[in-house]
Formats: sequence, structure tokens, C-alpha cells
Amino acid sequence: MITSRDNSQLKQIHKLQRKKERDSSGLFAAEGEDLIAAAEAAGWTPETLLRSGEDVEPELLDRVSSLGSGARVIGVYRQRWSEPVGDVCVYLHGVGDPGNVGTVIRAAHALCDGPVILGPGCADPYGPKAVRASMGSIFARPPARTAFTELRGFKLALDGGAERTLGDAVSALAAASGPAQPSVVLCVGAERSGLSEPLLDAAEAVGRIPIAADGPDSLNVAMAATVGLYELRNRMAANV
Amino acid sequence: MITSRDNSQLKQIHKLQRKKERDSSGLFAAEGEDLIAAAEAAGWTPETLLRSGEDVEPELLDRVSSLGSGARVIGVYRQRWSEPVGDVCVYLHGVGDPGNVGTVIRAAHALCDGPVILGPGCADPYGPKAVRASMGSIFARPPARTAFTELRGFKLALDGGAERTLGDAVSALAAASGPAQPSVVLCVGAERSGLSEPLLDAAEAVGRIPIAADGPDSLNVAMAATVGLYELRNRMAANV
Repeated sequence: MITSRDNSQLKQIHKLQRKKERDSSGLFAAEGEDLIAAAEAAGWTPETLLRSGEDVEPELLDRVSSLGSGARVIGVYRQRWSEPVGDVCVYLHGVGDPGNVGTVIRAAHALCDGPVILGPGCADPYGPKAVRASMGSIFARPPARTAFTELRGFKLALDGGAERTLGDAVSALAAASGPAQPSVVLCVGAERSGLSEPLLDAAEAVGRIPIAADGPDSLNVAMAATVGLYELRNRMAANV
Repeated sequence: MITSRDNSQLKQIHKLQRKKERDSSGLFAAEGEDLIAAAEAAGWTPETLLRSGEDVEPELLDRVSSLGSGARVIGVYRQRWSEPVGDVCVYLHGVGDPGNVGTVIRAAHALCDGPVILGPGCADPYGPKAVRASMGSIFARPPARTAFTELRGFKLALDGGAERTLGDAVSALAAASGPAQPSVVLCVGAERSGLSEPLLDAAEAVGRIPIAADGPDSLNVAMAATVGLYELRNRMAANV
């Protein structure tokens, strides 16, 4: 039973709240029984696993938790990175909010076979908020990292200003490719700035999610990515 | 210029972080220039508007902010509640996370004409996190409050265990109703518990969002609602 706040494992867990520490160590922390169970279900072995009241005094574990409410269990794991390939993947560009990054990782786990590919300017998917928002999907489907120019397959970009709707863009893709479906990367930019012109020009297709005329300027990036994946999944399944 | 922390307006703003105070006063606070601009664009007049450095000393405004980073402007507004009617509305049941409630308010603003209708067990849409997550859509489309049994129109429930897919359920609805489309309420329950059996039985149709076999148990409730609204919007537009 750990009874000192100077314990090296506790100190490490606390430090892993910082991106610099995660980058240099290649580790990250997951808090709470649901995440620990998701890690185990996906076959991940923790480097460290501390249970409150069993391995460590509860108030000491609470001190290093990233949750305001404290944690009953915290595990430390080694980061994994997937290859950026799949029948359908998602590419995020400049998505700096960790909650959105984690939510898209969960949506991709639900709706496509490939990973979430993180381009420049994205939040660290192994930060506490992103891990939590992934609801454990980060263990089942670790993210990938690649530049836009390195993406393989048919790039379908979401853009609020596109002429074609998302549905029309996906239909065109399905019709053009026929039974031999190419791999598709759904490309989504940050909420306000979106994808830059050069990236949009380099995409094979661009589509917009139709929004009410009196509606907001945009959808949340996680919502947009989820709708894009849903549409791709539906239309490509219909085309098989 | 307010220079005392005992100022009654500052005290009120601070108290409005608590639901009890919001309920008893019928007021709420919105922080940040984007939200204040959204309120103004939607024609809301603040009861109080304090700008940092103009109306109040910056450190005093920061002290009553619900944001860790402080706020440059905070407005106090009177809550508004919509009638629970529209061609398409969303009904939330037991959705206790304020971020999800706010995100669905934003999605409904983008994708349907009716309000978000809050049933029992939902987070207060006028709490700071919900207001922020709505990105200002709460001003353009104030929520409604009604019990499930009082909902008018065709109730389409989302349920992970439904036999029919969401797409099939919407197609059936569109086909059954023909050109005279009924108003539709998309009903969504909490992430884990979902909608109870009696509610599902009382819905005119139940559909599931198809999720990969090796995927997570469910989608985030805001993602599910967004996909449901997108599908309804697309199919009903195609049927016109």
C-alpha cells in the first residue's frame, strides 16, 4: 500500500497530465473502472495499475487524478499508433479540442473499420480529456498520425461551403467506383477555419452537410464527422 | 466601474452557476463575446451586461466566471421556454450531461425547425456548460419542457436494440405518411439506460443506428441525436 505522496508511480501519473511528459515517455494514464475495463477487453496490459484503497491510499490517488471527483483506479499504458489504413478512415486537421478528438475516435470505432488519423494541430488523443471522451474506444482503435499529403485512398472532404451535399458526394463516389470500392478517407477540419483551400483542392470530392438557412454557422466537428461516417456507411453498404 | 466584490450584480452572476438560483430567479448567465453576440443576434436583451475593464475590474469579473480562464464579458438573461411543436423536434429523456444537452440544442438548430424538448432527468439547458456547448443556439432556439406522454406527432425512438435500422424506420414513416407529412419527434434516451420499455412501446417507430459488430456499445447521445436528425432531414426532403 502506497502511503507517501513521494511515491514514484504517483508522481509519474501526475506528470502524465502534461503533453510534454506523455511525448517524452510514450505513456499515458486512464482513469476510472470503465476505461480500465475497456483497456483489458482490448488486450492492453498496464505498466502500472493503482486501485484506491488497495494499492494506494484513496486521498493520494485523488491528488494525482485529472478528475475533480478523484478516481477509484488509474492505469498507465504505453501509447500505440495505428497504420493510417482501412476501408473507411477519418482524417482530422487542426482539431484542437481534446473532447472532440476523443468523441470522433469513439464514432469511428462505431461506424467504420479504419482509425482516426490525426494531422497537424490536433489535440493529443492520449491526453486525459480525449481518453475520457473516447469512452475506451482509444484502446480498441488507436489513432494514426499522418500528413494530409500522405493519405491513401479517396479523400472525401467536409466543407460548409461545398456545392454538393454530403449525400450527393457519397452517391457520386459509390457510382463512380462500382463494386470495387476504393478506401475512403473522410477529411474534417477545425470548426471555424475548416480545411484550407489547398487541402480542399487536393480532395477527390467535397460535400457539405445541409444546414437550415436560419441555423448556426456550422456543426460541432465531432457531430460533422459522425454524420459523414454514418452517410458513408449507409451508402456504401447499399452499394454492395 | 464596479470595484467591489460585494457588488450585487457580481454576486448574482456568481450565484447563477447554481441550478437552484437559476430556477428561483428564472435567469441565467452567458459568458464570452461569441455567446453575447449570439444573444444579440437573436434579439435577446440582457438584464445585466458587464464588460471586463469597462463596467467592472477584470479580476472581479474573473472571480465570478464559470470558466477557468475568466471572461471578458458576462450577460444575464431571462430564461425562455418554447412550445414543444415543430415539423421535427427532438425529445431527450434522462440526458444528465449538460454538454450533451447543449450540443443537441446546437444540432437541432442546424438540422430541424422545432426545439429540443427536455423530459425528466435532463440537465438544465441554462447551466453554464450547456449554454456554452450550445454555441449560442440556445438563444436562437430555446428549449421546451414536456413529459413524453404529452408529445404531439409521430414519435420516432432511437434504441440500440431495435430490429429496424434508423434508415428503414424513417423510410417507413415517409412512405406511410405520403405528401401530408406528420410532425415527427425524435426521441433519445440516456447513453447507458436508453429509453425505457414503456416509452419504446408508446413510440410509433423505433430504429437503431447501425454500429460495427466490434464497435462500442453505443454512440454518444449527442452524436446519436445528430445522426437521427440528419437522416430525418434527408429522407423527408427527398419525399417532398
